Amino acid sequence: MARLKGFQELVPVDEALKRFLIEIEFQPKRSTISLEAGLNRVLSEDIVAQLDLPRTDRSAVDGYALKASDTTGASQIKPRILKVVDGESVGKDQAKQIWTGNPLPEGADAVVMLENVKLLRNKVEVWSSATRWENVSKQGEDLRRGSVVVRAGKRLRPQHLGLLAALGMRELRVFEKPKIAVLATGNELAELGTKLQKNQIFDSNRLALMALCVELGAETVNLGIAKDELKQISEKLRIGLEESDAIVTSGGTSVGAPDLVPEAINSLGKPGVIVHGVAMRPGMPTALAIVSGKPILVLPGNPAAAMLGFEVFGRPLVSKLLGLEREESRPVMKARMTKRITVTLGRRNIVRVRVLQQNGEFLAKPVSARGSGLISTMTESNGYVVTPENVEGIEEGEIVLVHLFDRLEVK
Amino acid sequence: MARLKGFQELVPVDEALKRFLIEIEFQPKRSTISLEAGLNRVLSEDIVAQLDLPRTDRSAVDGYALKASDTTGASQIKPRILKVVDGESVGKDQAKQIWTGNPLPEGADAVVMLENVKLLRNKVEVWSSATRWENVSKQGEDLRRGSVVVRAGKRLRPQHLGLLAALGMRELRVFEKPKIAVLATGNELAELGTKLQKNQIFDSNRLALMALCVELGAETVNLGIAKDELKQISEKLRIGLEESDAIVTSGGTSVGAPDLVPEAINSLGKPGVIVHGVAMRPGMPTALAIVSGKPILVLPGNPAAAMLGFEVFGRPLVSKLLGLEREESRPVMKARMTKRITVTLGRRNIVRVRVLQQNGEFLAKPVSARGSGLISTMTESNGYVVTPENVEGIEEGEIVLVHLFDRLEVK
Repeated sequence: MARLKGFQELVPVDEALKRFLIEIEFQPKRSTISLEAGLNRVLSEDIVAQLDLPRTDRSAVDGYALKASDTTGASQIKPRILKVVDGESVGKDQAKQIWTGNPLPEGADAVVMLENVKLLRNKVEVWSSATRWENVSKQGEDLRRGSVVVRAGKRLRPQHLGLLAALGMRELRVFEKPKIAVLATGNELAELGTKLQKNQIFDSNRLALMALCVELGAETVNLGIAKDELKQISEKLRIGLEESDAIVTSGGTSVGAPDLVPEAINSLGKPGVIVHGVAMRPGMPTALAIVSGKPILVLPGNPAAAMLGFEVFGRPLVSKLLGLEREESRPVMKARMTKRITVTLGRRNIVRVRVLQQNGEFLAKPVSARGSGLISTMTESNGYVVTPENVEGIEEGEIVLVHLFDRLEVK
Repeated sequence: MARLKGFQELVPVDEALKRFLIEIEFQPKRSTISLEAGLNRVLSEDIVAQLDLPRTDRSAVDGYALKASDTTGASQIKPRILKVVDGESVGKDQAKQIWTGNPLPEGADAVVMLENVKLLRNKVEVWSSATRWENVSKQGEDLRRGSVVVRAGKRLRPQHLGLLAALGMRELRVFEKPKIAVLATGNELAELGTKLQKNQIFDSNRLALMALCVELGAETVNLGIAKDELKQISEKLRIGLEESDAIVTSGGTSVGAPDLVPEAINSLGKPGVIVHGVAMRPGMPTALAIVSGKPILVLPGNPAAAMLGFEVFGRPLVSKLLGLEREESRPVMKARMTKRITVTLGRRNIVRVRVLQQNGEFLAKPVSARGSGLISTMTESNGYVVTPENVEGIEEGEIVLVHLFDRLEVK
């Protein structure tokens, strides 16, 4: 086909991604931050517990701490009577009131719950027999001193911050946020706030791509809009390489249209463009490049193709730059296709869908298989299905794996 | 049971939540922000498109714009020959080269793709017949001027920012971020960075709860730690009511232990505590209160109970304060339970699970059904299953709906 002539070959997605990631020399820097600033940051070192949790044996319930051997055979009919004490220790035939979380008094080795005792003045009737360490949280049973509790390369969620606080950590070693520069190219593009000339459209990709980077935890550098002129594009890319750890561009990659971004990249350094033309849809004209060890992701100008191309190449790229141990996938779920769709054989197709919940079942409704140019398909859909290269379509009723890029409205 | 005596009744979760949310008088304020600052903010007004997208009919492919009627009967064997022109319009038997996204020249009503033509000097051989408007994106087919494109109450994701940029919007009307004050109570709690006394533990709930609020898009006010003293608790709550739109506390809600938070709340205003004791597990001692129209969520001190109690009551609360049209659920997915577990009949049980992918199937592995005190269960699990009040357990092999609170590591 004439249209594909410009691309020597269409590289399969997995192959393209592998060639791209392997060339990246970037090593994220490390810094120390306070625990309070840790949400969504990525650990650069394993965290080793500096204390046992619990630090001492403690009660897991509200009740009476006592010696288990003093309760042998106790029942509601034949209760054991123990003396209530209030000191630091519990002796034979003694019991001490204790609340959940309190350290076990010396001498005690079990706790009987409140509902299994009856308090009588300074005595307590115990109605049930306790086994040794019953209702006791043993020292170190939650976390043991010296054990690795969170691994390097993990993104910290609220529960991790809670756990690290419980261990008394005030500071963390994390990877610094990578800086991603974003550039839009195209003579037709206008900045927000300007008056549109005939033939112009507002640039929308830059903002969407920057937001995708920020959402992943990166910082962004806004390189603005470059006209379809080699000099202007090269100059902006040069600034991007200086000020950031990676560049994402949109526009100017089609073979038919002015194909200046790859040319500009190749003028800036080696190896330059390593993949141009990927066997995917949308996003076929995507190019992947490396200049001086820094990655450049060259996405098409069509809004849906740019955003979905970012899903395929941008997310693994940013995951790597963040220092994440593994790429973070979007939330995924299985859903049933509501109608048959055809896809392009030999390509990896990214099929936009809207997932709905109906009678407890999740349904995936394809959103316009038409051109990647429709930006509204990205807000009408809340996820996408990835089809492998060897299929021609998805059948009605087929169960598919959906990657969600917007919240599912449940109920 | 003696332990439950202090609670007049255990209120079912749905009932408790309904009573709580209905009493909240808060109306989020509105403000204007730049589109660049819009990620994750919640729209306070419907967005109406101020222009058509595309603004004019434009080409959906790289090719030649022409009159469809000039291509009738064209084929590779019997091509139609058209004159290539370069002006603003296309006349009979003329064609003009056009790139994807370019406005259609006057007079043209179709585009033939590059691969279906052959260029000869200043003529072009057209090998296929085009229908009217073939390969043309019609004006307004993406978004129509005057239509509502994003509704008030929607949280903005990158794709929405892209869409709003395409429409030329520079500013947005959004709801202001609500302020949530977070207080930890308990004599046993120590601040990070202090030296632990015997019987002390580091406060971990405040940081985790603040992070949960921040993650949802709220701002937080740190009220610190209050000892189990009525005066100290009341004073901190009073500050919280002054400086924020809602308060979340942890600790001091058990009937057995010093039960001062509800007492302090009732001293501050009406109606005070409206629910104390919820038919859920963990989180039974949760209390819900309203003072002067402002909500107070009183969570237990056990870390897992506090975080899971926040899931059940805090998320709907914060969703409402954010101005979200609907509560945002966690990402959900179906998974197969790897083993049988029993739960408490008559309660809504929040069962921590770890979801794994195995041979393309998602498995949910229960993480310690034991006490809610183990903070490590919150980082070992990546989600939870909610069981209704009328079940006694989940069978091995049963398909359950998991709410994910950490990323799933796919592959």
